[in-house]
Amino acid sequence: MGASAFDAAIALQPRADGMFLGHTSPAYANMVGPFGGVTAAQALNAVLQHPERLGDPISLTVNFAAALADGPFTVIARPARTNRSTQHWVLEIQQQGQAVLTGTAFFGLRRDTWSADEHTMPAVPPPSEVVQAQGPARVEWVKRYEMRFAEGAIPTEWDGKDRGVSRTRLWLRDSPPRPLDFASLAALSDVFFPRVWRRRPMLVPIGTVSMTVYFHADQALLKSTGDGYLLGQCQGQAFRNGFFDQTAQLWNQGGDLLATTHQVVYYKE
Amino acid sequence: MGASAFDAAIALQPRADGMFLGHTSPAYANMVGPFGGVTAAQALNAVLQHPERLGDPISLTVNFAAALADGPFTVIARPARTNRSTQHWVLEIQQQGQAVLTGTAFFGLRRDTWSADEHTMPAVPPPSEVVQAQGPARVEWVKRYEMRFAEGAIPTEWDGKDRGVSRTRLWLRDSPPRPLDFASLAALSDVFFPRVWRRRPMLVPIGTVSMTVYFHADQALLKSTGDGYLLGQCQGQAFRNGFFDQTAQLWNQGGDLLATTHQVVYYKE
Repeated sequence: MGASAFDAAIALQPRADGMFLGHTSPAYANMVGPFGGVTAAQALNAVLQHPERLGDPISLTVNFAAALADGPFTVIARPARTNRSTQHWVLEIQQQGQAVLTGTAFFGLRRDTWSADEHTMPAVPPPSEVVQAQGPARVEWVKRYEMRFAEGAIPTEWDGKDRGVSRTRLWLRDSPPRPLDFASLAALSDVFFPRVWRRRPMLVPIGTVSMTVYFHADQALLKSTGDGYLLGQCQGQAFRNGFFDQTAQLWNQGGDLLATTHQVVYYKE
Repeated sequence: MGASAFDAAIALQPRADGMFLGHTSPAYANMVGPFGGVTAAQALNAVLQHPERLGDPISLTVNFAAALADGPFTVIARPARTNRSTQHWVLEIQQQGQAVLTGTAFFGLRRDTWSADEHTMPAVPPPSEVVQAQGPARVEWVKRYEMRFAEGAIPTEWDGKDRGVSRTRLWLRDSPPRPLDFASLAALSDVFFPRVWRRRPMLVPIGTVSMTVYFHADQALLKSTGDGYLLGQCQGQAFRNGFFDQTAQLWNQGGDLLATTHQVVYYKE
């Protein structure tokens, strides 16, 4: 299989000083700067490729400090603390010596324990029975994902009326399909369109300021998920004076909860 | 009003090099090291007291890299990026030159916008009708909070049987009561006991590895909340091979959603 657009987008070159060199990808362009999910995946990828890495990602937090300019950037991943089976990372992406992203990641070795999914997958029709979102995309990155909205699609009537609820449920995967890994799972965590547009359809300016991803999937579960569909569910909890949060879950078709994710988003009006 | 135990615990002395000096507090001692909520509040307090601070906290992520030893520690708060109305901070707490906590915070100036709480407060009896948790506390910090469990109290039968659900709802506040501020709201976000103990009552070793708090309260809402009770709700989403997450909401008695918070926790067995 050839390198996908996603693999090309998150590729990093190690530099002699231990930092990594990355480049924004036109394939994942957003309104201003790149799709945040890919930037998050790039930050995570610096740890995944780091020679000192221990274990697999358990949590990732990225803060978007400024829109990335099209072009190259530097990723700094510093292992702040390495314990016997866990590791804490401090992340930063810079352009022209200025921080455009700050973040932290926690990696760990997993052991077999009692396990259970408490937030179980909601009942929705299978992907084949849910129509694929079509039509002209406002932004390029949307074309890199197949999305089938079972509930709460992107509004078609931007009338500004409060719908009272912001929940979306959709089947989604990379387009073209690509086997799931930690980097693509991080990016998929940011695919949900801003909840304020769903709750009260009005195209107000928005921007994610911080996103956290908890990885419940291990290597085996990623492998068994493969390039199948994920069911994503996303809902806002509070919209208050310029900032709202949204919380989301991602299951595979077998109903395994692969990731839970949260973000806080700036909005205007 | 005199300084409370909480104010004493989170007090920081600015040093000439711009770092802050703090000290663990016996009043907030946990099984090993201090209560993580107070450590999170101390990290946030370094930004709150920083001369370069802009605005109020919107999000905070702290990663617990190692148990703090009883004694002094250094808090480093670095403004990584300051925009017109927002600011990104990188946080670290060190002991003996080693990171014991890493983190990031996002601060911002709020503006009046359309607002709504979507995750509304569940119906529970008022605080006066819910019995206060009593009895010998395993750890000292628990005595610094008044807790009234409306649902899902700390188990009394540690039989290891899967209860199928991990939800807890409780009224809580500082003890003695203390007017709510950003630092105490950060600490209150970590008051929920580990969901794995609720879901499957067995005293397995646990430790929070990462916690994120989204502050929906602004100064005015903190003030109107005062020293009243908060309703806290907390539930796990997935327990998988050594790590589980829990997600929580904190409302004031008037039903305003003040904070939403998430954490991922290590567990054994």
